[in-house]
Amino acid sequence: MGLSNQEDDIMNHDHRDLARDMSLIATDATVGAGLPLWLPAGAAMRHELEQLGRETALATGCRPVYSPVLGKRALFEQSGHWDKFADDMFPAMAMGGTDADDLVLRPANCPHHAMLYAAEQHSYRELPIRYHELAPMFRAERSGVVSGLSRVRQINLDDTHVFARPDQIRDEVTLALGAGLDVLDTLGVEVSYVRLSCRDSSDRWLGDPGHWADAEAQLREATHAVDLSRRGLALREEAGEAAFYGPKLDIQVLDAAGREETISTVQLDFGQPERFDLTYIGPDGARERLVMIHRGLVGSMERMVALLLEVHDGRLPIWLAPVHVCVLPLSDAQQDPAAEAAAQLSAAGLRVRVAISGSLGRRLREARRRRDSLLAVVGPTEVAAGRLAVHDPATVGRTDLAVAVLRDWLRAAIGARQPRVDLS
Amino acid sequence: MGLSNQEDDIMNHDHRDLARDMSLIATDATVGAGLPLWLPAGAAMRHELEQLGRETALATGCRPVYSPVLGKRALFEQSGHWDKFADDMFPAMAMGGTDADDLVLRPANCPHHAMLYAAEQHSYRELPIRYHELAPMFRAERSGVVSGLSRVRQINLDDTHVFARPDQIRDEVTLALGAGLDVLDTLGVEVSYVRLSCRDSSDRWLGDPGHWADAEAQLREATHAVDLSRRGLALREEAGEAAFYGPKLDIQVLDAAGREETISTVQLDFGQPERFDLTYIGPDGARERLVMIHRGLVGSMERMVALLLEVHDGRLPIWLAPVHVCVLPLSDAQQDPAAEAAAQLSAAGLRVRVAISGSLGRRLREARRRRDSLLAVVGPTEVAAGRLAVHDPATVGRTDLAVAVLRDWLRAAIGARQPRVDLS
Repeated sequence: MGLSNQEDDIMNHDHRDLARDMSLIATDATVGAGLPLWLPAGAAMRHELEQLGRETALATGCRPVYSPVLGKRALFEQSGHWDKFADDMFPAMAMGGTDADDLVLRPANCPHHAMLYAAEQHSYRELPIRYHELAPMFRAERSGVVSGLSRVRQINLDDTHVFARPDQIRDEVTLALGAGLDVLDTLGVEVSYVRLSCRDSSDRWLGDPGHWADAEAQLREATHAVDLSRRGLALREEAGEAAFYGPKLDIQVLDAAGREETISTVQLDFGQPERFDLTYIGPDGARERLVMIHRGLVGSMERMVALLLEVHDGRLPIWLAPVHVCVLPLSDAQQDPAAEAAAQLSAAGLRVRVAISGSLGRRLREARRRRDSLLAVVGPTEVAAGRLAVHDPATVGRTDLAVAVLRDWLRAAIGARQPRVDLS
Repeated sequence: MGLSNQEDDIMNHDHRDLARDMSLIATDATVGAGLPLWLPAGAAMRHELEQLGRETALATGCRPVYSPVLGKRALFEQSGHWDKFADDMFPAMAMGGTDADDLVLRPANCPHHAMLYAAEQHSYRELPIRYHELAPMFRAERSGVVSGLSRVRQINLDDTHVFARPDQIRDEVTLALGAGLDVLDTLGVEVSYVRLSCRDSSDRWLGDPGHWADAEAQLREATHAVDLSRRGLALREEAGEAAFYGPKLDIQVLDAAGREETISTVQLDFGQPERFDLTYIGPDGARERLVMIHRGLVGSMERMVALLLEVHDGRLPIWLAPVHVCVLPLSDAQQDPAAEAAAQLSAAGLRVRVAISGSLGRRLREARRRRDSLLAVVGPTEVAAGRLAVHDPATVGRTDLAVAVLRDWLRAAIGARQPRVDLS
């Protein structure tokens, strides 16, 4: 890797270097630019993020759905994406019908979720209805601008769309904002502030000004309900920064270089319900217009992995780490006890690597390069004592533990999504 | 609906009718033909199948990966798909480069997995390496021939590719065949027989005849190792039915109409390793050619759901059922205790529906139409006794149970993936 260990320990890496050092991601010219391949180590991390997204969705009353990545051009004409984002969309594919029948890779998942909602009739009593999907969407980035995981052509999103009555906005946004702050806390990503983007006095906003004023007031109330100040967070309100179709709340974080980034977002949408004529049956039997809420908590798998790698410099919270424990026999004489310890840890569902090839120095460097969470060294003393010498390179913590104790400590920390195992 | 209850109970339905009656799937003309939308009830069933696929993969040593749905035309030229299957592929999308740089929706997942393997160097000691993915692939079916879930344009596959040494074929196929039979057993799908497809004496087979003879012998040995006769299954060998790139084993099942269908398949491939120059480092340091094994156990989510709906006539094994329990208050007076019981069951992770709207007869018909697994009726007697009157419409079993007992019985049956809760 060319870097000395010291440099390894002190410098903040670019996520592309970290992804390569940790064997997370491969790219291939024949697959194409901006289309990363997730190697087993990267896939383990992504699966943990997907599970967090899914569990958070279920805990907040979402119903999982699945939808295809393709839709007719007519679908995106109706949603308005074709007019606004055609340049960022992949070319439509002719299927032998009219232009409107051409199929196109979706630039967003909301039109499919809108059609799922519209497929059944819904009473006011059923709302809010929340559809969740780990859903791929597509952006036809030029091959020159794609980069690592931060700009890609297939974006795999933790995506929820809520179909709500206008009087449910406050509670719904409170739920989403609280869940978003909890998710970032679990991921060890520090939140900078919460941004409320509203209208200004211009007339470029879609829909009724009265609805806007009401919705903005409900968003403000949601930030009070979540009690941002108890969390030490400020609310910044920015006039004129709303989307043209609705106001929104963004949770702003700082990346490793101190640049501001939006990860979690809760966005009201008055436009799609009009365009797709989405309604519910009110108490008096009449069809009423609903509001749609776009809600992304973990956000895109690609951007989240890039951010996490950089802010943690690869030393991820242990439940996210591709390798929980690297078992290192000091010499060939300890290979069998090392393999036994590894088997016992693996059988408990832990991600374990046994480092056997090469000199001890080389194996230690590889464990450091891969950012294996814990090192468990097995030498003659450890074999005699029936223990492992367990090190945490991130905290320089160290202690001797029986395999079963290490297993139980790890399972408890991982089960609770704690950042580290406390070895002190 | 149109059907009387009696007809409902006796006739075998087409999966399209069942999917509609059970609110599993929606289709939409603006999304496009052959691109089903999975409503929450269908998504619950699909997620259970995905979990079964994923757990089986992990239990048989697979490593999950993720790969994008797009690849350059050059990738599929190299794999040979472009030559053989261009008619079934979606049109390539021009991205401003040469024709070979055009991006195309993949017709199969193997080329991406081959590139994942090729991204790292592998020693003979690491093999077999098994990559697993719940991976979408695409087929540009004419809109006239797509139908329900059995012919679709996006196929979501439980897909594994094994990279093995030639001497590992027997053990690897034994593992895959055993796992495939267990999966179908868990799903309650009866296996008809196992088919071994070999060469014939013609010369249309790719690669060295010696390799073929050896591979076919190892496949035969695998069927002995699995002990098909103990499972009451015959092996049928069909000369000339192999793929041109390798012999294969298929697990044949019968659909509800008695037609033979292949679900699980284990297929050797001598072709892709040549085309992608896939090798491992042998004991003497030389690069050796490997064999690739395509392994699908649950198969495509779409076809499996269609098959399961038809063979079980919608009365799915309880762990797969969209609704585990439908709680039915006899009258408005029992709405609160019914809601309490439902909340207690839901909190235990069970899929519960409370049927409150409409007459009792109408609610019973709806529960039957939706194929809710169990009905839990709450009348005045049940409220007084602190119990639920639990019915299983599939077995006509019936018993009175406290909510906590029903909860524990259900959790045990679902956790063990048993077909039903025994109410006797």
